Amino acid sequence: ARRGGWEMAAWARAVRGLLLDVSGVLYDSGGDGGVPIAGSVEAVRRIKASGLKLRFCTNETQATREKFVKKLQGMGFDISVAEVTAPAPAACRILKERSLRPHLLVHNDLVPEFDEIDKAKPNCVVIGDAAENFTYANLNEAFRVLIGLEKPVLISLGRGRYYKETDGLKLDVGAYMKALEYACDVQAEVVGKPAKMFFESALAEMGVPPEQAIMIGDDIVNDVGGAQQCGMRALQVRTGKYRPCDENHPQVKPDAYVNNLAEAVDIILQQL
Amino acid sequence: ARRGGWEMAAWARAVRGLLLDVSGVLYDSGGDGGVPIAGSVEAVRRIKASGLKLRFCTNETQATREKFVKKLQGMGFDISVAEVTAPAPAACRILKERSLRPHLLVHNDLVPEFDEIDKAKPNCVVIGDAAENFTYANLNEAFRVLIGLEKPVLISLGRGRYYKETDGLKLDVGAYMKALEYACDVQAEVVGKPAKMFFESALAEMGVPPEQAIMIGDDIVNDVGGAQQCGMRALQVRTGKYRPCDENHPQVKPDAYVNNLAEAVDIILQQL
Repeated sequence: ARRGGWEMAAWARAVRGLLLDVSGVLYDSGGDGGVPIAGSVEAVRRIKASGLKLRFCTNETQATREKFVKKLQGMGFDISVAEVTAPAPAACRILKERSLRPHLLVHNDLVPEFDEIDKAKPNCVVIGDAAENFTYANLNEAFRVLIGLEKPVLISLGRGRYYKETDGLKLDVGAYMKALEYACDVQAEVVGKPAKMFFESALAEMGVPPEQAIMIGDDIVNDVGGAQQCGMRALQVRTGKYRPCDENHPQVKPDAYVNNLAEAVDIILQQL
Repeated sequence: ARRGGWEMAAWARAVRGLLLDVSGVLYDSGGDGGVPIAGSVEAVRRIKASGLKLRFCTNETQATREKFVKKLQGMGFDISVAEVTAPAPAACRILKERSLRPHLLVHNDLVPEFDEIDKAKPNCVVIGDAAENFTYANLNEAFRVLIGLEKPVLISLGRGRYYKETDGLKLDVGAYMKALEYACDVQAEVVGKPAKMFFESALAEMGVPPEQAIMIGDDIVNDVGGAQQCGMRALQVRTGKYRPCDENHPQVKPDAYVNNLAEAVDIILQQL
């Protein structure tokens, strides 16, 4: 009852798998790298030791999973590429299934994720958080590819509005997605959180049904709302981009709040 | 009856003033300048000789009115700065009325239009077709100003999706407006066609009520639809960005079609 009583809930006792958001849950991002959030390195180890299935579920698209995982390993996290669900590989699956050949408007460091994809004579546009690659020329080029298609297909690796870096706030991929949507009168297909298909593929990779999985994230809409739409329970941590006003969100209500990942793991492991 | 009979309509006989769109009605724009549309130089002269009031109504924001008018004079048009209604001066009136100090994200050549406006400690953002100034850094900067305001105010000089230049299609101000709207969860205030206030100020400058004015333009939504919303009659010319599919537009139906400005002036002057 100390923590609102949720630790005794039936759904918490039925848990077999955890999905963890990464930035803001495992670490706080900064200029060249990041800093682990207190207790989170140990929390990941404890989850693995417990026998619970574990999946890292990120919208990161500024680097390949290889680079991303190396950064986390450098901070001390026990994590491998095979444990990460990220938008670019999800997009690659869609491209292959539908024989789509993308024009890429993404970060240079993400390009290798698309190495095996045919990109000749593009018949769709894939947009990610391209950062410095969001130039006037590149945006016009992506627009021309899209408007030139008989049936424009725009795939967006996320729909974030903005994020914070050490040198200030930056527009995220969602803003540029909206620009192209408006110019071409199309609706983007969003890959990554909060897309249902994204959570579903993470669950499939774990082999755990939604009612036995818990998502832990700092983003009330993309993590908590998205996971709940999929039939999962979801906890919001009070780290990362969490803001007190999230607790009054008009649409989304987490199944419980925790101060941080370490506390969430404490409580969940007590149920097993 | 030859031209659908509209020339005998009561509203055509009551006309006291004409509003002309410029690009696509007077001239076709190209790389360094443009080419007058056949008969349009003479048509402007005939309007002036007739005693009808005349106003040029443009969404052009890549240059000051001075530069814009010089270009048209160079093509042979009888036009002066005082006869042009354009978004930047309309925005300046709004800024003054509401004590708004803009952060400008506009084309370098438009900046002088804001010379007399206080721009210290900005409390709003004004966005125009900034073209090469739409850099990643400049977009982030405008975004930061906006998101940092207690009540974000975004004023957009038009809401165009895209336009064509000799080297290809370019995203117009509307696309970037949408990006900022989404990132900051605000609704831009659009100055310029099709905003009602924009047409109303052109009418006020002419001293003609809407029911005695006719708008002539090539843009079915921004020219024709906007003017009709204001109580004016509106003709669409079959020049400029006119496309045959405009004649099946689901929302907007011009009061009449004409092949070009010269034909419109022929018919209107016959009524007087």
